[in-house]
Amino acid sequence: MSLFLDAAWGKFTERAPVWMMRQAGRYLPEYRAIKEHLSFWEMCRTPEVACAITLQPVKRLGVDAAILFQDIMTPLPSMGIDIQFNPGPVIESPLRSSAQIEALRLSEKTEIAPFVAEAIKLIRQESPVPLIGFGGAPLTLATYLIQGGGSKDYAEFRQFLRYAPEAAHALLDKLTVLSIRYLSMQVEAGAQAIQLFDSWAGLHSAGMYAQFARPYNQRIFEALAVYKIPRIYIAVEAAHLYPEINQLNCEVVSIDWRLPIDQVRPQLAGKTIQGNLDPAILLAPKEVISTETKRVLREGLGGAHIFNLGHGIFRQTDPNHAKHMIETVKSFDRTKARELVLR
Amino acid sequence: MSLFLDAAWGKFTERAPVWMMRQAGRYLPEYRAIKEHLSFWEMCRTPEVACAITLQPVKRLGVDAAILFQDIMTPLPSMGIDIQFNPGPVIESPLRSSAQIEALRLSEKTEIAPFVAEAIKLIRQESPVPLIGFGGAPLTLATYLIQGGGSKDYAEFRQFLRYAPEAAHALLDKLTVLSIRYLSMQVEAGAQAIQLFDSWAGLHSAGMYAQFARPYNQRIFEALAVYKIPRIYIAVEAAHLYPEINQLNCEVVSIDWRLPIDQVRPQLAGKTIQGNLDPAILLAPKEVISTETKRVLREGLGGAHIFNLGHGIFRQTDPNHAKHMIETVKSFDRTKARELVLR
Repeated sequence: MSLFLDAAWGKFTERAPVWMMRQAGRYLPEYRAIKEHLSFWEMCRTPEVACAITLQPVKRLGVDAAILFQDIMTPLPSMGIDIQFNPGPVIESPLRSSAQIEALRLSEKTEIAPFVAEAIKLIRQESPVPLIGFGGAPLTLATYLIQGGGSKDYAEFRQFLRYAPEAAHALLDKLTVLSIRYLSMQVEAGAQAIQLFDSWAGLHSAGMYAQFARPYNQRIFEALAVYKIPRIYIAVEAAHLYPEINQLNCEVVSIDWRLPIDQVRPQLAGKTIQGNLDPAILLAPKEVISTETKRVLREGLGGAHIFNLGHGIFRQTDPNHAKHMIETVKSFDRTKARELVLR
Repeated sequence: MSLFLDAAWGKFTERAPVWMMRQAGRYLPEYRAIKEHLSFWEMCRTPEVACAITLQPVKRLGVDAAILFQDIMTPLPSMGIDIQFNPGPVIESPLRSSAQIEALRLSEKTEIAPFVAEAIKLIRQESPVPLIGFGGAPLTLATYLIQGGGSKDYAEFRQFLRYAPEAAHALLDKLTVLSIRYLSMQVEAGAQAIQLFDSWAGLHSAGMYAQFARPYNQRIFEALAVYKIPRIYIAVEAAHLYPEINQLNCEVVSIDWRLPIDQVRPQLAGKTIQGNLDPAILLAPKEVISTETKRVLREGLGGAHIFNLGHGIFRQTDPNHAKHMIETVKSFDRTKARELVLR
């Protein structure tokens, strides 16, 4: 077992494992060097490249887990959906009718994105740390597919949920089947944990989440139970949803920076907490990074803790600042700190 | 007294007063007709035009309160800051240094925006309903001034708070003085309530809010206490901040749609609750609007309630849908409904 997997399974580890959301990305010069020559889809769809990018932060920063380099959009072209990146996802024909939703194809799990299975196998051969696979939660995927891309308020999507709830449920059902197949394939190829990204869940009321998100997320987590790998859930701006999220069958919940871990932990009983340094802190001087990193570590002492950012690392981040944070985490002895706190 | 003022002062009114955030705006054809000929600043700075726009939703929809047509940026040019709208605010020279902050001018209250006083006097002559004045909270104004405009994650602003907290406090202090003068002027000209918009407060952790937002908001509310008008506070995506917001000296807190009023009310003890229909619901069929409006009204029965949207009305909204919501609110007898609930 590894520190990361131990903590994910709920163990109080002597130090917190650490990785960063979007750790394989634009803040790294070695990533930008690859990106100069390839489109985003080419990077995702070339297993050797996806493998190399996945391992960049492992090599440079010594994080305790690797996360597959892909996008939550990766499985969607298999349904017959055209997606471009500019730089956010742009859906050529946003879904707005039942006919469009019915026409979406559901491929077998080996057909959805075979290049991902290849990338995972390559990463597993090379990676010294566990590999996290991931996918988008159905509600979040539906947000993009219906809206057509990123938006400030996702008005069209929120309208669609109210105008055509049956069509929305039909789409969410298909995306759930797709996700179960896609994520099962990742685990069978070698992923050692799965993170479900529900990036836009926080936009909705608790009541809407209970209708349009929780049941689908639950089906995915239950389908993954057979693999006995830790299941991680993340939503941002989701403090109002914690009572709902607490009902999900997953081992780990990743939280953003808005509330301290010790305040959130009682609301997520029995879960490992992942998080929650504000990524903006990595843009601050190193003294601030040390202080704030230690604060988060102390707030995490109440149980199992995987150190992470509260959201993706900013592209302006100096990699040396990220490294400073990681070294601060690694030098923090949780057993000793807990004794001092309890004394 | 009016229904709106009664409810704002904490009275359980027999029906809920109703108005809508951004009720004077782009969803109204009569607003778009004016906007065709004038720039946004021209509309704000011509008292007759600002008055006419303020009264458009009062005339067409029969809302129970008018809100001044201006922008939270309105008082900032008096400090020597150049702001354009495109369509969101764009700051020609974002503030990034102490020298820039020291150079900001603080004008006397009659000099900050004399056209606003003129507009308020005109509105008071014509309006059959109370007039709400407003301003941006210091943290939210600082967000734009330092970032330079709208942003997805406000990375530069969040970095500035960590790199230069003293400079940030100096700026917040100046914006607090400005706001007290600007809002006092509005009340002296005739505004019958004041709403403080803290649109970006929800971006920050509770700890950051306690340092960079609450003390400044508190100073503004305390300075306004002499006028004996109801003071309204609004932040969005702020469920994690309710314990902080509850400490503010204001009569009304406006909440977004993320949690039902009956769940939020105990966290905001003694405050009138304003809100909280999801503005996306006005894009739905009328039956959905009736159902959801009545749900919000029932959830509001636990105390004083001003019916509103959880955030600004979408520009795609059909004015007849807004009218349908308002009529639903007006036909809902709270006294009777409460008896039925208590029985």
